[in-house]
Amino acid sequence: TAVMAPILLNCMGNDQNEYIKQQVQVKNPYLDTMEEDILYHFNLSTKTHNLPEMFGDIKFVCVGGSSNRMKAFAQFIHQELKLPGNPEEIKDICEGTDRYCMYKVGPVLSISHGMGVPSISIMLHELIKLLHHAHCHDVVLFRLGTSGGVGLAPGTVVITDKAVDYSFCPRFEQVVLGKVITRSTELDEGVASELLQCSSELQNFPAVIGNTMCTHDFYEGQGRLDGALCSFSHGEKMEYLRRAYEAGVRNIEMESTVFAAMCRVCGLKAAVICVTLLNRFEGDQIASPHDVLLEYQQRPQILVSHFIKKRLGNIV
Amino acid sequence: TAVMAPILLNCMGNDQNEYIKQQVQVKNPYLDTMEEDILYHFNLSTKTHNLPEMFGDIKFVCVGGSSNRMKAFAQFIHQELKLPGNPEEIKDICEGTDRYCMYKVGPVLSISHGMGVPSISIMLHELIKLLHHAHCHDVVLFRLGTSGGVGLAPGTVVITDKAVDYSFCPRFEQVVLGKVITRSTELDEGVASELLQCSSELQNFPAVIGNTMCTHDFYEGQGRLDGALCSFSHGEKMEYLRRAYEAGVRNIEMESTVFAAMCRVCGLKAAVICVTLLNRFEGDQIASPHDVLLEYQQRPQILVSHFIKKRLGNIV
Repeated sequence: TAVMAPILLNCMGNDQNEYIKQQVQVKNPYLDTMEEDILYHFNLSTKTHNLPEMFGDIKFVCVGGSSNRMKAFAQFIHQELKLPGNPEEIKDICEGTDRYCMYKVGPVLSISHGMGVPSISIMLHELIKLLHHAHCHDVVLFRLGTSGGVGLAPGTVVITDKAVDYSFCPRFEQVVLGKVITRSTELDEGVASELLQCSSELQNFPAVIGNTMCTHDFYEGQGRLDGALCSFSHGEKMEYLRRAYEAGVRNIEMESTVFAAMCRVCGLKAAVICVTLLNRFEGDQIASPHDVLLEYQQRPQILVSHFIKKRLGNIV
Repeated sequence: TAVMAPILLNCMGNDQNEYIKQQVQVKNPYLDTMEEDILYHFNLSTKTHNLPEMFGDIKFVCVGGSSNRMKAFAQFIHQELKLPGNPEEIKDICEGTDRYCMYKVGPVLSISHGMGVPSISIMLHELIKLLHHAHCHDVVLFRLGTSGGVGLAPGTVVITDKAVDYSFCPRFEQVVLGKVITRSTELDEGVASELLQCSSELQNFPAVIGNTMCTHDFYEGQGRLDGALCSFSHGEKMEYLRRAYEAGVRNIEMESTVFAAMCRVCGLKAAVICVTLLNRFEGDQIASPHDVLLEYQQRPQILVSHFIKKRLGNIV
């Protein structure tokens, strides 16, 4: 096969580099037959916007739940990459809709996705179509989030090994036309270890690699005793968290399984980086002072910024 | 039992009216033992805010996905109820967080809930706790949304009879500590017929009562051919929609089952009113002009406003 490779490359055209580029793979045979594709929740369309011109140079996509946080990240990465212009004047590309916000900073796209699997899944469908229409290649996706920690000190950053469901399995159940299908939720191991290496290069930066449990609600599904509904005891809660810990779960959030599953199907390298706001073995309420929580939330941003700068050669 | 009733009432205290008030029932024995309850995603707390004073007079809670739309509804109902003050100056009670927005207009609370079951479920847990802490009673909840229509002309308002899942069953599956439990999703029949009566009193107001299917994603789960992933044919899509129609489904959205289930468990009368933005038998993309979509989105607001004014005696 080593002998065959150059011949194959030549068959694909003169530009050998073009061939090895990792394209974004939409898995929909109908898409390229459509005259127009309206990305409804972004308020963008292939007819009204020149997507290759607007987004063709994107190499890193960073997503997170809160719109304020993703705007702050865009301004932060603007400063970190020492790009020209005023970071305060960054414009929301999706300003015609309030479903998501989107900021472009050089090769970095920063997008909010709201809370929960359905909300991030709508965003991911339209993002993957956007990257496809814009002919992007070699893109890495990061989810930068907040989470509940399982046996970790608050403020610890968890780089996700496997995204697991409520029974600690690395799978995502998707309903397609009334039938349940299962997708794998494995993430890119290389990106995860590269992120762990980055964390060791930062000072006083507590980070671990562990499994991340993704639930479909914040209260009963995560074993909280402080929701409007609670039918279990403190002991039963602790037992469930203990079993999660034994299965390698180090944090709990609400989007990682579908994020991992969709990126995997579409050939996108992806990582999940969430800071823990509390240790769930010690409580349910997020009671830390505002400024402490704000500092915690900057940690995934600092880590991903370091990763991006290294990849771009800004750090030797 | 007719003879027993007065005796029972007397046992409850002097104020007979107090007894027949419909209280909000949180189903959590731990809640009233907590020293403080932080409603994290509202940025409110029982210690820092006087919830009975702020919210005690609430009688109608209107929720919807989009924050802009729920702000517009707050301004609209302010005018409709002819309340003093400038509707433009309405303040977001949750302005310290970007997870949800919340506006209070006399006895009406208007709150955004984002997209999908997990996002509205977090909001509902904290809303039901808020109503409980504020000692609210006789509250009616409305979800005002947008949806895909099934065999209806775009712009038709669907008042939900039953909220059903992807297999057209009126149930919501909730994971509690790793186990799946099932909750009923029946809504209040009385409120639904009262809303249909209201719609007949408005001019040129197309409205029907029908079942609403709630899915966990917008593309594959709703049978769209225009997502980043699509593994089925046009014929299979049409067949699924036909089966939905035969099961009484008239529209598809992403929040109704958990909304119905949680309101039912907590003794809250609730209704779901969604306008259809397109007829899914005819397509998948939401391609109507912006001003047409905007007018459609006002229809659930006009209907619920009429209901509220009638209940308050503003309309004879």
